Amino acid sequence: MDGGAPAIVLVDPQLGENIGMVARAMLNCGLSDLRLVRPRDGWPNPAAISAASGALAVIENARLFETTGEAVADLHAVYATTARPRGMNKRVLTPRMAAAEMRVQTTAGTRCGILFGKESKGLHNDDIALADAVVNAPLNPAFCSLNLAQGVLLVGYEWHVAGAPAFEPSAFLTRGTRRLATKEELLGFFDHIERELDACGFFTSADKRPRMVRNLRNIFQRSQLTEQEVRTLRGVVAGLTRAWMKRKRA
Amino acid sequence: MDGGAPAIVLVDPQLGENIGMVARAMLNCGLSDLRLVRPRDGWPNPAAISAASGALAVIENARLFETTGEAVADLHAVYATTARPRGMNKRVLTPRMAAAEMRVQTTAGTRCGILFGKESKGLHNDDIALADAVVNAPLNPAFCSLNLAQGVLLVGYEWHVAGAPAFEPSAFLTRGTRRLATKEELLGFFDHIERELDACGFFTSADKRPRMVRNLRNIFQRSQLTEQEVRTLRGVVAGLTRAWMKRKRA
Repeated sequence: MDGGAPAIVLVDPQLGENIGMVARAMLNCGLSDLRLVRPRDGWPNPAAISAASGALAVIENARLFETTGEAVADLHAVYATTARPRGMNKRVLTPRMAAAEMRVQTTAGTRCGILFGKESKGLHNDDIALADAVVNAPLNPAFCSLNLAQGVLLVGYEWHVAGAPAFEPSAFLTRGTRRLATKEELLGFFDHIERELDACGFFTSADKRPRMVRNLRNIFQRSQLTEQEVRTLRGVVAGLTRAWMKRKRA
Repeated sequence: MDGGAPAIVLVDPQLGENIGMVARAMLNCGLSDLRLVRPRDGWPNPAAISAASGALAVIENARLFETTGEAVADLHAVYATTARPRGMNKRVLTPRMAAAEMRVQTTAGTRCGILFGKESKGLHNDDIALADAVVNAPLNPAFCSLNLAQGVLLVGYEWHVAGAPAFEPSAFLTRGTRRLATKEELLGFFDHIERELDACGFFTSADKRPRMVRNLRNIFQRSQLTEQEVRTLRGVVAGLTRAWMKRKRA
C-alpha cells in the first residue's frame, strides 16, 4: 500500500454491492482506507463482501461513522466529488489536478480524503461545505453517468498514476532470452537480403538501387527486430531464394 | 460525439450485462462505435440493453463480426489492451500514452480502434498480433482486477481528457449573480473589522498591530470572497459588536 494514500469516504452509500465494488476499485489503485458514513443497509454487509472479491481486506478494515464530520476529523485536506459543478464558491479541480495536489500534500505529511455521495443523489451540500475543493471528472457533458465504483476508480487511478514511476515512452516487451538485434546482426541481414536481391535481378535500375535499399532498410529498422527475428528473416530469405533457385533449375 | 473517436472492439465478450456497461462507460467518454466479435450469448442481448440504461443508442448501433480481423478491417491503428504485459515484441503504452497517440493520429484522418478481450481471459495472442501496440493500465501490481467496463472507462477517459479543452487550474464556481468581491468591497470590510477590533481593544500592542492586521487580511484574502460573502461577513462583525455593546451596557 502507498503511504499517505487518500481515504475514500462514502457518505450514505445505498447498495452493499456498490461498497464492495468500490473496495475493489480502490485496491486496483493502491488505496485501502475506506470510511463509511451511515451505509443504508447496515454494516457489515454480506453483499459488500461478495462484491469485493479479492479486495476483502479493504472491506474488513472499513470504518463506520455517524457523520461526515467525524469521518474526516483526522484529515487535513478533503475533496468532494460531484457529477456536476454545484453552486458553491469553491475551487473545482479535475481528478488529475486533485491527484497532483494530493501527491504534493502527502509528501508534506498532510492526510487527504475524498468524499463520494450516495448513488442516487451524490453529496449533500453540507458535506461539500466540509471540503477544501470540489472534484469533477471532465466527461461527456451530454452523458455523465458513472456509478459509484467507477467514480472512485477514476479518482483513484489518477492518484495512482500521479505517483507511478515514469513509464518508458516506448518500452518494448523484450524479455528473458529475447534481446534486440545488434546493429551488426541487422546489417548482416541487410547484406544478405540485398545480395540476394541483386542476384535475382530485383533492382532493375542502378540509379534507383540506393533509394530502394534505404527504403527497405527503413522498413526493417522500424520494426526494432530482436536477434531471433533477424535469424527468422534470414531464414525467410534463404527459403525464398532456394525456391527460386529450384524453379530456375527446373 | 467526437469525430474520429476510436472504436471499441469487444472480442468474445461473455455477459450481456458487461456489454451494456461498456456502452455506458463509452458514452461517458464520448465514444459510440462499439464492435462485437462473437458475443457468447448472441446478439441482440436483452441483458445488454437493460445494463446500458441511457446509452441505448450505442447498443443499437453496435456492429457484429465473425473475426477480429473483420472487426478492425477499416481501421488504420489498433491497440490491444491487456491486464499484464504479454511475451510479445510490441510497444507497450499506458492508456494516457495511447490516448495522446490516437489524438495525433485522428487529426491526420487515421481511424483507431481498441481491442478488449473476454472477461475471463483477456485477448488471445492472435488478436494481440493484429494490434500496433499493447495498452496496459499502470495499476497496483499486487491487485489488478478491473472488469470489462472499467477497462473501457479508463482508456476512454484518457482519450476524452486528451481532447478536452484545458481546464482552468483554479476555476471557481462563481456563477450567475454571484461575483467575486472587488478590492474596494474587500478593503471596506477590512476597514470595518479593523475599526471594530480597535474599538474593542483587540490589538493589545501597537507594535504588533500591523502584523496582526496583515495576518487577518491574508486569511480573508485567501478565501477569494464573493461580494455577497463580504456583506455576510460585515453582518457578522456588526452582529458581534452589537452583542458586545449590549454586554458592555448591561
